[in-house]
Amino acid sequence: MEKGQLLYEGKAKRLYSTAEENILFVEYKDSATAFNGEKKEEIAGKGILNNKITTLIFDKLKSAGIESHFVEQISENEQLVKKVDIIPIELVVRNIAAGSLAKRLGYEEGTTLRRPIVEFYYKNDDLGDPLITTEHIEILNIATPEEVQALYDNGLKVNEVLRPLFQEIGVTLVDFKLEFGRDANGQVLLADEVSPDTCRLWDIETNQKLDKDVFRRDLGNLTDVYKIILARLGGLSK
Amino acid sequence: MEKGQLLYEGKAKRLYSTAEENILFVEYKDSATAFNGEKKEEIAGKGILNNKITTLIFDKLKSAGIESHFVEQISENEQLVKKVDIIPIELVVRNIAAGSLAKRLGYEEGTTLRRPIVEFYYKNDDLGDPLITTEHIEILNIATPEEVQALYDNGLKVNEVLRPLFQEIGVTLVDFKLEFGRDANGQVLLADEVSPDTCRLWDIETNQKLDKDVFRRDLGNLTDVYKIILARLGGLSK
Ligand SMILES: Nc1ncnc2c1ncn2[C@@H]1O[C@H](COP(=O)(O)OP(=O)(O)O)[C@@H](O)[C@H]1O
Ligand SMILES: Nc1ncnc2c1ncn2[C@@H]1O[C@H](COP(=O)(O)OP(=O)(O)O)[C@@H](O)[C@H]1O
Ligand SMILES: [Mg+2]
Ligand SMILES: [Mg+2]
Repeated sequence: MEKGQLLYEGKAKRLYSTAEENILFVEYKDSATAFNGEKKEEIAGKGILNNKITTLIFDKLKSAGIESHFVEQISENEQLVKKVDIIPIELVVRNIAAGSLAKRLGYEEGTTLRRPIVEFYYKNDDLGDPLITTEHIEILNIATPEEVQALYDNGLKVNEVLRPLFQEIGVTLVDFKLEFGRDANGQVLLADEVSPDTCRLWDIETNQKLDKDVFRRDLGNLTDVYKIILARLGGLSK
Repeated sequence: MEKGQLLYEGKAKRLYSTAEENILFVEYKDSATAFNGEKKEEIAGKGILNNKITTLIFDKLKSAGIESHFVEQISENEQLVKKVDIIPIELVVRNIAAGSLAKRLGYEEGTTLRRPIVEFYYKNDDLGDPLITTEHIEILNIATPEEVQALYDNGLKVNEVLRPLFQEIGVTLVDFKLEFGRDANGQVLLADEVSPDTCRLWDIETNQKLDKDVFRRDLGNLTDVYKIILARLGGLSK
């Protein structure tokens, strides 16, 4: 399938049309950004790593019965996906307190939560992706109550698959962000990416951060730790 | 009933024990604070106005079947209340977008919401009273799901009483904050105060702000507008 027109350039990916109406071409970029774009850097090799890791994870989710927009990887830094109408909600699933949750609730980072929780953030760069409640979603009219329920259920389901999967490879799944969209039939479908850019992943033994916090907090070389994740997922040969 | 020991001094009130175990003595102060205490001023007469307005409102809520901690007004700036164990949640009920909601969702101030909404904030000065979700409340373990439901239902009920009440006196009830506590029997009871310090009140005709935003945003004399609210509530003679 050939790359068509550039439809959208985001902070981490470029989307292109293809010959097929409902299929998009996704190119993973080498850019790293944080704090709503305030911190920015080009990191050679990052796009390839995230493309490969996202591919592996969407494959594993599919084997576990969770559909996503993913169609196939077509080069080192490119994949084909089903086009969806992105719902402007970022779903964050958390097992352990870190980042903004630790700050908001006054938890020490690393505190295990009594149970996994789901948070909704309004995907809106101008507003800084604020935390929102289900009632905010209702008045914003950005998703129906049924869709909100589907996001919520899917978020916890993805967690139930990914948490043990990472545990098996010696990684604690602290939290992660998901995006969903409506497919051509109006069905809610998992989209975007699942990578160390969008998850907090800590080594089970050492608690070493193996995710974008390495970039956010200047903790070392980003591609070094993303490579650890790719290798442990069994994807270094690919 | 005589004033006993000073139990707690907050930003707007002082609480004292009384001879009765379950009754507290509340003294309304003349302090105005905003932005989590960053802005502060002494405003002579404010305590008297808020004591009188809160008294009138708790009376009207009682007539409408909504119980509160209020027992009786005993002087210009003092009242007796039932002692409760305050639940560290500030309930905000909103009819119209203003303040932090307008900022969070990108609404123009003054936009009427499709329906009244209820928000929960974690009453914690160190954390800056952050917005929290029902799942945050669950992991914080600061209220049971049944209590959260009671807060929610009571919040909307208070709104259904106060909104028309203010409308009748030419005032738009934009939003307001409530606090609840557990009484001696463990029952959830409306507590704290309901005053222009804790409500956004706009003149229906002119949209003039008749509440603490006058202080927050330097829009004029605070006691002048609080007096308008007291007078319209029929309380100038008291
Ligand atoms: N299957 C899809 N169909 C349409 N848009 C998608 C799909 N998957 C992801 N997107 C969107 O592609 C955009 C590009 O990704 P990214 O560079 O991560 O953007 P952002 O800067 O918004 O994070 C995002 O807005 C994302 O929501
Ligand atoms: N009936 C009550 N029993 C016990 N505490 C109460 C009662 N009503 C209000 N309070 C608490 O009294 C404190 C004093 O009020 P205030 O000066 O407004 O404090 P703050 O600075 O926390 O806003 C508040 O923490 C409030 O929650
Ligand atoms: Mg993105
Ligand atoms: Mg107060």
